[in-house]
Amino acid sequence: MSSSFGTLFRVTTFGESHGQGVGAVIDGCPPGISLDETDIQLQLDRRRPAQSKLTTSRNEADRVVILSGIDNGRTLGTPIALMVKNTDQRPADYRQMRSVPRPSHADYTYQMKYGVQALSGGGRASARETIGRVAAGAIAEKFLSERYGIEIVAWVSTVSTIEAPSPDTMSVIRKEVDRSAVRCPDPQTAEKMTDAIEAAQQADDSLGGIITCMCRNVPAGLGEPVFDKAEALLAQAMLSIPATKGFEIGSGFAGSRMYGSAHNDVFIKKGTHLGTRTNHSGGVQGGISNGEPIIFRVAFKPPATISLPQKTVDFEGNDTVLEARGRHDPCVVPRAVPIVESMAALVLVDLALRQKMRTNETIR
Amino acid sequence: MSSSFGTLFRVTTFGESHGQGVGAVIDGCPPGISLDETDIQLQLDRRRPAQSKLTTSRNEADRVVILSGIDNGRTLGTPIALMVKNTDQRPADYRQMRSVPRPSHADYTYQMKYGVQALSGGGRASARETIGRVAAGAIAEKFLSERYGIEIVAWVSTVSTIEAPSPDTMSVIRKEVDRSAVRCPDPQTAEKMTDAIEAAQQADDSLGGIITCMCRNVPAGLGEPVFDKAEALLAQAMLSIPATKGFEIGSGFAGSRMYGSAHNDVFIKKGTHLGTRTNHSGGVQGGISNGEPIIFRVAFKPPATISLPQKTVDFEGNDTVLEARGRHDPCVVPRAVPIVESMAALVLVDLALRQKMRTNETIR
Amino acid sequence: MSSSFGTLFRVTTFGESHGQGVGAVIDGCPPGISLDETDIQLQLDRRRPAQSKLTTSRNEADRVVILSGIDNGRTLGTPIALMVKNTDQRPADYRQMRSVPRPSHADYTYQMKYGVQALSGGGRASARETIGRVAAGAIAEKFLSERYGIEIVAWVSTVSTIEAPSPDTMSVIRKEVDRSAVRCPDPQTAEKMTDAIEAAQQADDSLGGIITCMCRNVPAGLGEPVFDKAEALLAQAMLSIPATKGFEIGSGFAGSRMYGSAHNDVFIKKGTHLGTRTNHSGGVQGGISNGEPIIFRVAFKPPATISLPQKTVDFEGNDTVLEARGRHDPCVVPRAVPIVESMAALVLVDLALRQKMRTNETIR
Amino acid sequence: MSSSFGTLFRVTTFGESHGQGVGAVIDGCPPGISLDETDIQLQLDRRRPAQSKLTTSRNEADRVVILSGIDNGRTLGTPIALMVKNTDQRPADYRQMRSVPRPSHADYTYQMKYGVQALSGGGRASARETIGRVAAGAIAEKFLSERYGIEIVAWVSTVSTIEAPSPDTMSVIRKEVDRSAVRCPDPQTAEKMTDAIEAAQQADDSLGGIITCMCRNVPAGLGEPVFDKAEALLAQAMLSIPATKGFEIGSGFAGSRMYGSAHNDVFIKKGTHLGTRTNHSGGVQGGISNGEPIIFRVAFKPPATISLPQKTVDFEGNDTVLEARGRHDPCVVPRAVPIVESMAALVLVDLALRQKMRTNETIR
Repeated sequence: MSSSFGTLFRVTTFGESHGQGVGAVIDGCPPGISLDETDIQLQLDRRRPAQSKLTTSRNEADRVVILSGIDNGRTLGTPIALMVKNTDQRPADYRQMRSVPRPSHADYTYQMKYGVQALSGGGRASARETIGRVAAGAIAEKFLSERYGIEIVAWVSTVSTIEAPSPDTMSVIRKEVDRSAVRCPDPQTAEKMTDAIEAAQQADDSLGGIITCMCRNVPAGLGEPVFDKAEALLAQAMLSIPATKGFEIGSGFAGSRMYGSAHNDVFIKKGTHLGTRTNHSGGVQGGISNGEPIIFRVAFKPPATISLPQKTVDFEGNDTVLEARGRHDPCVVPRAVPIVESMAALVLVDLALRQKMRTNETIR
Repeated sequence: MSSSFGTLFRVTTFGESHGQGVGAVIDGCPPGISLDETDIQLQLDRRRPAQSKLTTSRNEADRVVILSGIDNGRTLGTPIALMVKNTDQRPADYRQMRSVPRPSHADYTYQMKYGVQALSGGGRASARETIGRVAAGAIAEKFLSERYGIEIVAWVSTVSTIEAPSPDTMSVIRKEVDRSAVRCPDPQTAEKMTDAIEAAQQADDSLGGIITCMCRNVPAGLGEPVFDKAEALLAQAMLSIPATKGFEIGSGFAGSRMYGSAHNDVFIKKGTHLGTRTNHSGGVQGGISNGEPIIFRVAFKPPATISLPQKTVDFEGNDTVLEARGRHDPCVVPRAVPIVESMAALVLVDLALRQKMRTNETIR
Repeated sequence: MSSSFGTLFRVTTFGESHGQGVGAVIDGCPPGISLDETDIQLQLDRRRPAQSKLTTSRNEADRVVILSGIDNGRTLGTPIALMVKNTDQRPADYRQMRSVPRPSHADYTYQMKYGVQALSGGGRASARETIGRVAAGAIAEKFLSERYGIEIVAWVSTVSTIEAPSPDTMSVIRKEVDRSAVRCPDPQTAEKMTDAIEAAQQADDSLGGIITCMCRNVPAGLGEPVFDKAEALLAQAMLSIPATKGFEIGSGFAGSRMYGSAHNDVFIKKGTHLGTRTNHSGGVQGGISNGEPIIFRVAFKPPATISLPQKTVDFEGNDTVLEARGRHDPCVVPRAVPIVESMAALVLVDLALRQKMRTNETIR
Repeated sequence: MSSSFGTLFRVTTFGESHGQGVGAVIDGCPPGISLDETDIQLQLDRRRPAQSKLTTSRNEADRVVILSGIDNGRTLGTPIALMVKNTDQRPADYRQMRSVPRPSHADYTYQMKYGVQALSGGGRASARETIGRVAAGAIAEKFLSERYGIEIVAWVSTVSTIEAPSPDTMSVIRKEVDRSAVRCPDPQTAEKMTDAIEAAQQADDSLGGIITCMCRNVPAGLGEPVFDKAEALLAQAMLSIPATKGFEIGSGFAGSRMYGSAHNDVFIKKGTHLGTRTNHSGGVQGGISNGEPIIFRVAFKPPATISLPQKTVDFEGNDTVLEARGRHDPCVVPRAVPIVESMAALVLVDLALRQKMRTNETIR
């Protein structure tokens, strides 16, 4: 169980979906950052269930409480613990699932790994675990924004087979993303996506999708070759989010079909620094940010928990039909947008702090 | 610079492309594994340059020497250091590149990160760095094979736009993969790929491609939620390989377009365990292996170093035309096959050792 | 700020002395251990203030609440978060200290490190931080006791210049230790120690002391050379406890004055294993436990916060006289006994889990 | 086997006493430090055997070779690998010891831990392993000296019961320490110590001793509470050195016998900073350096390998008499002086780099 992420800015999350609550401890947050609960709540509200008819009806206010590490509205440099209480639990919904592992869910693998029956409702495999990440990510974003002017914006670029035209990636902002509940900045596509999700919901089925994420104003020099390259840590971060199946940066899988002469990002002068004419690299070269925007995409599978009856077997191997109850998202991507942003922020803040060891500045 | 990978079975690589040599230290290899240099040399030979006309002409024998950690043909449980000397260096080839950063290579970002001119030939960003990984991976594979019967086989599934039909993934073996220099197990496709690579080489250009990797006989229970999930560590491992742009597991990006009812892998009884009818999950659920084969794909971009003239700027921002010399692969995927296998082995061995903490067995 | 300890069984503590509360997250506790709050409360009660007239009058019940990681009275193998609320805070007591750094306390160094004024009452440097350690240690002890029969017993062996005769180290138990409030198992010495502490208290002064700790039934093989040797991690663990100034294992500093021929612990047969006739090694050889009891001693300085007026300077360097208020222990060793035990347990549990990677057993 | 030390400046050592060689990889050394092999050789020469009649007659030149990470006499910021070959091996000397574990040596515990017979000559438990530490420490010292003016000087303060008067700790330099082969800066005491060591050698016996170490010009702010406090990491570092039994900082064990009013280091103005009148704290308060010199002491036991016959048992438990051959130091402290300095440097360089994350400076 590795519930910690990061080397210098290290987040440890805790909590199950149906226990007392979920939260995180952030160890290594620099001192002196102005911070209160509203900074964090904003992103939690974008992640929380029951925010629209497209999401699970489980109704959790998800109010964050900061337990330590802050004094007079500023970070102390000591561990910041924060917590969100679970309130709307219905463990009874999960009774059948204790004997029948849900297909493509984590019931079976948790049993095999831990040898104890997973908690009702998914335990740590529940998306509820990501609350701690989003809260920690909000703090990371605050630091990145204040010190470096870094902006991180993610949006839904496809739902099922419905693909949005690429927005003006250099200027898209969260406000535009949040105009639709589905979090696609293109209004026409957003409508189609909404319809598709609602149709799937009606059919007791579920849909997948893809999120695109953009990180602007990232200074050159972030990334720690050879194993903690920027794209390697981003890939780990994204694939640690529940329901993800793929990650690509810059040209991604499509780039594997290009010629080198077309794929190469030639340098041009941009003010006092060098920039690149194109950005097939997605903002990283050799594992290190080059000053261009970091852009990547994350694929999410359709949620495993559906109400359609499924012919499967129970833990003992006996044939059965599973009809999942519980309250579930028909498509996770709208709520996953702030999760992707938060994990990106956690990667970047850690790399920014690690890079400081190479500056010439001495401590005092 | 994070040149270490793994928690219990931890590899640290060292060495630049044009220094004295490259190598690795493996800390945490269990004692008592039979091991000598031939176990390692086999995979190094599959990775080494000049093994066919499709690869760089740089001629390195890449003979590995074990410096420590072995006695009487068995691992001692102490750090295993190993090294490969560089012999065929031609730093003069790289003279122009010291003033002109190669487009889409790491020259510029290393300069921005470290503030010192990168070594001729790419330094740590050279694919030569991966020798240490392949050597360490060979040791990991030995352990995984002896203790668990795990088999790891990767192959080239696309080169540029040429895509091979999927082989019988359950039975494809390395011998079949190695039948062609391009490492595609389908003979007809291999021939087309070879032609395409040779044509690109003639045109002073380069091609990308995709590698598919299969891990069979992986026991259920491997993966450490929530941040060190099996797919998260695989993603990190793969995206840390030079020239990679994407990673997907199981259904991957295509899975994002499926319905949940079609995507879910329903359980069936397989002998004494549960298995799944389909394997869209790619062998992992909730971040933990489920006993089905782990299958994933890795996208490689076309190599950045091409001999075609490129209009770009030098470090000072002055317009220039770069004509790269040096000896380079026109397409890296044939030689990247053992690198992908090795990184997969490093992920699995570490997860296997970490999972042992949960067994009921006491130490003595 | 590194508030995490351990590689596989990893504890992260959080909380300041005068914020909302203090606590810990334990990541990597094996699943299936029976555990509830009473297991933890026992040791917290031995650590808590106001338990006798020898300790600070700050009155905290220190009731622990488990927030996650437990279901049906058993550990799930997921992170265990636990918390103790602060109730009896009197920040006003610390007003002068915000401008005058207390001599030999952490006020000055926290200011220099973090650049923000430390919280009233010592913040993270307060002994209150150790609550999270004691809670986590209690869980570690549960595991060590159930799986290995390991017993950890610490006691006060000196207070100031008053030294207790060595108890029968092989059989001393906590009940005997707790017979006196001062936690010295020898009744006569305990009385003298009590008198000395009371006298120092009356004189507005403070006393130091030494704690001896014994770990019985530790299996041979624990310790990870060369940097995580058992004694190295114990030394780190002990010197991370507030107010500690020294650590010695086995013969310790006195051993440096012995001849090798007298110091060597010759082997004898003990049942099915080898044992040693003497135990100058203190249960570890070459950094690895040898099956004999681990025995070590920890030196604590007299508490820095005293009510006697002290001529010192304020943060600006102006002469001043500091008369500390607040409520403080005149001697910390009685309450430090469970802290020492807990840190020992955290070291041993982590080493026990790490050693399991070397067993021949496979996962399934 | 944890052969890595440090978080940002991380050293991994490798090599057995009687294999091909020993060495280290330093990952995270900042770029741009001027460095060549002579910088390192100087400290290796102070550590090497056969440097005087007081040390083992094993004759090893211990010439270091840098394998990677340096170009044009400057560090690249990439891993620095370095190696020293073993040349004077006599494994035959160790034949009896393969069946009879040497008392108070690591033969038995390595067998119990790794389940394979330890290499002749002690394997990783040999003091020869410390070569990698000393080489890495020399690099760390170079950085600390250039950037911060930090000076680290250790010396032999006692051999057996012979105790040197404290030198002028503020000004003692290595040249004075090295005036005598025993490395005690006081000439009269050095002579007595020499006589005592020679007498023990004649008697086929061995002696212990204590080393004092002083670190001057350490900036305030180094140390990472709560587990990586400066004194905690120093304690770990020192107790990881072979043959150590104790560590104390500042007043140490003696401090436990003082009154708080006498022990407290009151503040005074020293130039632009605050300093303390006394230094019972040993340069650290609350786990963080306060700008005063860091001073600590390390106790070494008498070497376990002696030529005097010892009544003991073999691995099977049969009575036997062991007469150790091999070539051994009668007292390790003279050669341990640079080892202590090196480990101190490794702790300080890592803490200095970690503290940089808290400066306000941004990366670009």
